[in-house]
Amino acid sequence: MANQAAQQPVIGVDLGGTKILAAVVDGQSRILGRAKKKTKAERGPLDVLARMSLTIQEAIESSGVSFKEVAAIGVGSPGPLDPRTGVVVVAPNLGWKNVNVKATLEGEFHLPAFIENDVNVGTLAEHRLGAGQGVSSLVGIFVGTGIGGGIILDGRLYRGMNCTAGEIGHMVIQEGGPLCSCGRQGCLEALASRTAIGRMIQEEIQKGKKSAITSLVKNVNGQIKSRALAAALSEEDKVVTGALKKSAYYLGVAVAGLINFLNPEMIVLGGGVVEANEDFYLAEVQKTAVDFAFPQASQGVRIVPARLGDDAGVLGAALVARMNLDEQTAEMLPRAAQLVE
Amino acid sequence: MANQAAQQPVIGVDLGGTKILAAVVDGQSRILGRAKKKTKAERGPLDVLARMSLTIQEAIESSGVSFKEVAAIGVGSPGPLDPRTGVVVVAPNLGWKNVNVKATLEGEFHLPAFIENDVNVGTLAEHRLGAGQGVSSLVGIFVGTGIGGGIILDGRLYRGMNCTAGEIGHMVIQEGGPLCSCGRQGCLEALASRTAIGRMIQEEIQKGKKSAITSLVKNVNGQIKSRALAAALSEEDKVVTGALKKSAYYLGVAVAGLINFLNPEMIVLGGGVVEANEDFYLAEVQKTAVDFAFPQASQGVRIVPARLGDDAGVLGAALVARMNLDEQTAEMLPRAAQLVE
Repeated sequence: MANQAAQQPVIGVDLGGTKILAAVVDGQSRILGRAKKKTKAERGPLDVLARMSLTIQEAIESSGVSFKEVAAIGVGSPGPLDPRTGVVVVAPNLGWKNVNVKATLEGEFHLPAFIENDVNVGTLAEHRLGAGQGVSSLVGIFVGTGIGGGIILDGRLYRGMNCTAGEIGHMVIQEGGPLCSCGRQGCLEALASRTAIGRMIQEEIQKGKKSAITSLVKNVNGQIKSRALAAALSEEDKVVTGALKKSAYYLGVAVAGLINFLNPEMIVLGGGVVEANEDFYLAEVQKTAVDFAFPQASQGVRIVPARLGDDAGVLGAALVARMNLDEQTAEMLPRAAQLVE
Repeated sequence: MANQAAQQPVIGVDLGGTKILAAVVDGQSRILGRAKKKTKAERGPLDVLARMSLTIQEAIESSGVSFKEVAAIGVGSPGPLDPRTGVVVVAPNLGWKNVNVKATLEGEFHLPAFIENDVNVGTLAEHRLGAGQGVSSLVGIFVGTGIGGGIILDGRLYRGMNCTAGEIGHMVIQEGGPLCSCGRQGCLEALASRTAIGRMIQEEIQKGKKSAITSLVKNVNGQIKSRALAAALSEEDKVVTGALKKSAYYLGVAVAGLINFLNPEMIVLGGGVVEANEDFYLAEVQKTAVDFAFPQASQGVRIVPARLGDDAGVLGAALVARMNLDEQTAEMLPRAAQLVE
């Protein structure tokens, strides 16, 4: 049953540690207008929320859509967060604790607003609009400064009991291994994230190995951008190639574990590290995953790159808005009407 | 809608590497009769299937139920297997490859027969009749010679794309760690199974440590039974206590990963190693899991012992028979009837 809200434009917001993106998205998931601002998280939550409102307003202006036509707002935010209450419980990269994004936006715009974990949002976007269209079960894994994941089961986002499902970055795959940002040792994130890749490169350079990376970045001891890694890889730099290979190997071991344990149809790999070095990185992950998974389990399972790039965030957030809106509408309908398709 | 088959008795068979158990189970999951035979896997699949038939016949005789009343047969078998075709694809502990259990039993008894992975069967039984009643999502983990697992999501058995879901024993948690029976290194099974516990004990004894276990078992280099481990634990034997503690620690690390990644409501721990040493072992697993999981993720997640013991196999197999029968009945009904509850 088509309902009117399904055709109205919605707002998708991608709230990141460094930038806020907003887009006006129509019923066919086309972007009608967009805007972008720096997050400036150091100024505190109130300031960030005000900048988010401004970004939304600018996106609406740039779209040519009138504000009255907009049906809802969806926000992808770092978490853990509670989609039911709209509260971001903790977001270390924003310095946030218990910030109610939903209430703030609803108060400001007088529109229904919904929040969802940013990695879930990206996974949802890849499932509905990107690499995973038509697939029943998939795991999205995004490798950047950290490693996050999202799960689609039976065609729907799977959140788990406390809405934390998908946290693959903090599964231990090398007990006793390197210290993780979470305080434990040997998590996937501590072995395969861009932070881990940087650490491996620094260790090699400290051992006296030469690397092109030292001339590609200002400070090799800071965060090394994915693009610099890609440049060094294309120069066949041994230190960077070796570190990327190790990262892909550890990710492959984790992916094999997922194939054995959750046995999804598809694994979608995204995030800066994957995107910047796609062919090389993907091949390494695939090789290791096939090697470590049971042949019986891995048969036919596809390991593919994410397709939507930077737009995954706003498109997925718009999907979250639309899906929540549809659910609310469905709840208001008499039960008989729900049975008719 | 109550249907007649739901009240008729069914047969549940637990096909193990050393013994075959069969039971006649009524619509309220009460066991009306049972029988048991040695598997004698070394005699080959035809012989084992013949012994399975005999066990089923004996169980029916002991139950007082007439054969005509029996509605279906369910079998829990080692796998991987394909529940759709009824073929056990590979079962190393039986020495089986591509054995069609379903076709054999249906030909013999002229009754619908269904097979399911033995660990899935145990998980299903604990969910419907044991520790996990009323829970929406849980992971069952069974620690014996090997380690197997099963997954319940949204109240139903989750099988995954190739019906291998649940294989937690072959998730790597110590990359580069001890060799596993699967040929890889550092799988949970290689760190926490009874086989791994035995290896740890042997290593300590070879180093010259003294242990009560040497007087409790004939051959400390063979498989050490769970009961012997329990006896040594109750004598506060340091070598055995240490090995059990390590096993529980590694299992706790894996459980924490599941809590972060799948975020189920409950983890049910069963199998010989857990049952024989329940209080000690469970406390160690719980401590480690809480320590390694995100507080946000583990909040309210229960880690509990399995309740059904040896009966889980036949009761779960009977459930498999009944559920498949219900599905078949539902498929034969006109579509409108399915929408009415």
